[in-house]
Amino acid sequence: MQRMNTKDKILQASLELFNTEGEQDVTSVDIANVLGMSPGNLYYHFKGKDPIIHQLFIDFEEEFKMVLQAPIEKPLELSDNWVYFYILFEEVADFRFFYRNLQALIERYGDLEQRFRRLVNLKIKTMASIIFDLGEQGFIQISKSEAEQMAERFALQLTYWPTYHSLMAPTMPLPVSIHHGVFSLVSQLTPYVREGGAEYLELITQFRDKMLQAVKRK
Amino acid sequence: MQRMNTKDKILQASLELFNTEGEQDVTSVDIANVLGMSPGNLYYHFKGKDPIIHQLFIDFEEEFKMVLQAPIEKPLELSDNWVYFYILFEEVADFRFFYRNLQALIERYGDLEQRFRRLVNLKIKTMASIIFDLGEQGFIQISKSEAEQMAERFALQLTYWPTYHSLMAPTMPLPVSIHHGVFSLVSQLTPYVREGGAEYLELITQFRDKMLQAVKRK
Repeated sequence: MQRMNTKDKILQASLELFNTEGEQDVTSVDIANVLGMSPGNLYYHFKGKDPIIHQLFIDFEEEFKMVLQAPIEKPLELSDNWVYFYILFEEVADFRFFYRNLQALIERYGDLEQRFRRLVNLKIKTMASIIFDLGEQGFIQISKSEAEQMAERFALQLTYWPTYHSLMAPTMPLPVSIHHGVFSLVSQLTPYVREGGAEYLELITQFRDKMLQAVKRK
Repeated sequence: MQRMNTKDKILQASLELFNTEGEQDVTSVDIANVLGMSPGNLYYHFKGKDPIIHQLFIDFEEEFKMVLQAPIEKPLELSDNWVYFYILFEEVADFRFFYRNLQALIERYGDLEQRFRRLVNLKIKTMASIIFDLGEQGFIQISKSEAEQMAERFALQLTYWPTYHSLMAPTMPLPVSIHHGVFSLVSQLTPYVREGGAEYLELITQFRDKMLQAVKRK
């Protein structure tokens, strides 16, 4: 069994605190307290909250890039789209403190703005790739211009859906909210489905409802 | 000629400062300075920044509600949709400091969260009404479920497009960015247009390009 080193423990505890309490309300002393560590010991590893946030972003960026790269390198199976979008939303949710105060945080930490923009551009590229593949597989038929618009729209929704949903339905459990988000994305394919858009819509609606029941039973 | 009273002058100067400098970097002393007013005089009208922000929201809410109510009460002419969406984006842009740090601000000011949620719900209702009317006018044909999804998506885009666009293209002039936002909305109607979706897409693309040229010439 692999043991976590102190740096990783600090990062994990910080991420949990930021996500649950909100980044602005958490001090480095709070983080040390949760870990039963002296503030001095924490300071030895990270010189305050800023480098912690920066390192969390670097780790998030690395993981998210890997996930986004996958469908660019190898087309998804048609049936894998739902779970793939679910994973993307989950990645965003794991890092939700950052998205919740996106503007404030990228203004505060110099290079993050550019890095975050690159990440959204990669999202657009990945979405374009998925939509293109759905066309290649003969599943949908869509004009180039509409596909481009859809790719950007998907990227925007992936970026803001979690914040939007926690504003609109603050008590909704995360998996429920994510399934609604995935449905919102995939239902946009309906009018472009080559054979039987109505059947496709019926199918994904049933699938969503089944997923919602499953996560609600838990 | 109507003269602005001191309260309104303070509100207008604050809004401009918040929008250009970012709300978190502006103090009530800065606001007084811009107006050539003593901090004591400003304090006589508003007890600090918080009641200013609160009043700005109330004013924004009133105006935005009025604009959103219009198409619910009386269907838009088909040709009025572009300009109507443009006006909505402009309303959001006028109040952009609020949208830029949405989460932080609604957390800070108790009742704003609920009021803002009601405003987004009104956006969804307005969008649903516009989409329904487009169906009634025989312009589009769309299933109920897709229309509902589209209405919510439009509301989400109206809420986050300006923040998204200033992240992705920070140097782009506002009117250019808004025309792209409107195009992003209206192009989603394409596959539902009853007669000639391709022609519709061609038409709105040309219209967007004409608009972009016009605002760039200015």
